[in-house]
Amino acid sequence: MHAPPVQRLITELAKLPGVGGRTAQRLAFHILRETDEDAFALADAIREVKERIGLCEVCFNLADGPRCRICADDRRDPAMVCVVEEPGDVIPIERTHEFRGRYHVLGGALSPIDGVDPDDLKISELYARLGDGEIREVVLATNPTTTGEATALHIADHLRTRHPDIAVTKLASGLPVGADLEYADELTLGKALVGRRAL
Amino acid sequence: MHAPPVQRLITELAKLPGVGGRTAQRLAFHILRETDEDAFALADAIREVKERIGLCEVCFNLADGPRCRICADDRRDPAMVCVVEEPGDVIPIERTHEFRGRYHVLGGALSPIDGVDPDDLKISELYARLGDGEIREVVLATNPTTTGEATALHIADHLRTRHPDIAVTKLASGLPVGADLEYADELTLGKALVGRRAL
Repeated sequence: MHAPPVQRLITELAKLPGVGGRTAQRLAFHILRETDEDAFALADAIREVKERIGLCEVCFNLADGPRCRICADDRRDPAMVCVVEEPGDVIPIERTHEFRGRYHVLGGALSPIDGVDPDDLKISELYARLGDGEIREVVLATNPTTTGEATALHIADHLRTRHPDIAVTKLASGLPVGADLEYADELTLGKALVGRRAL
Repeated sequence: MHAPPVQRLITELAKLPGVGGRTAQRLAFHILRETDEDAFALADAIREVKERIGLCEVCFNLADGPRCRICADDRRDPAMVCVVEEPGDVIPIERTHEFRGRYHVLGGALSPIDGVDPDDLKISELYARLGDGEIREVVLATNPTTTGEATALHIADHLRTRHPDIAVTKLASGLPVGADLEYADELTLGKALVGRRAL
């Protein structure tokens, strides 16, 4: 029904997460309506990001050079490392302005069912970073999901035996700010109770 | 917070309709995760669509040559023309398989407030097509909105005086199939009543 170039664009757009056939068609018609300049800016941005962005050689975060901006920043505390699953997880933590250390991006979470073993993640690379004795605390900030928790436990076990001098912490579990107790799920509320703090 | 190429991609993605900052970031990280091949396929599809798709010289629908596939198709009934606002409106009508004529894409709807006058649309081009006497019916399929209805009335007025021999019809207004009377808005229900048909 569409001319081949239009159909091809719709097909490619529909591969994006959360974009179904209808949305892909709407986006394609938008691109057809905009100026060549605007459309080419998007096409070039996609090319550029794939050509210029790689992984930081230290922490495996996204980087436009050998090291990411955080690893290259001397003002960041070299004694703290926050371990996250994906590059996208660095952004929300940075937005809090509560963490001044560096990161280590695992590239996923352990999931034996999906065939993701420790060798598939940057776990040995994390352990290698701990070798020089500069790091004093590892903050495990994997997602509060089954695979994320399993990954945190796996790393915590290793650190406890091999690096008993390094503090290992994880993000607090509890009620999100602004939540309503009435609608909190029992797992979250349970964790909030177990982790209650003195006022 | 992001490396410049990543930020640039997020900015460009956020210009797409219905894509906010968060979604743009999620799409950008998806593009960063996929293979170069997949990402370049999307970038190339955007470029290709802008370079190869233009407007049909007859009906102003999207076309990858001088004429769109519908105008180039001899099996389509040359006596019927369906007038729509945008190229995207052709697709849903084609999907019904109820229309075997050709189209005329106006490129928008009359809207004096937004400065859209008859000269800004392909209205005179429509009248020019009617000159050769081949067209027997014009189906006005503009959107059932204020501007769409105004555009249909504008064209209908002209046709009634200049081409009294050409039938002018418009899409039926009424309840959508599967609708619930209880939740129908009064305008739609009113049109369904006025347009009631004998059984």
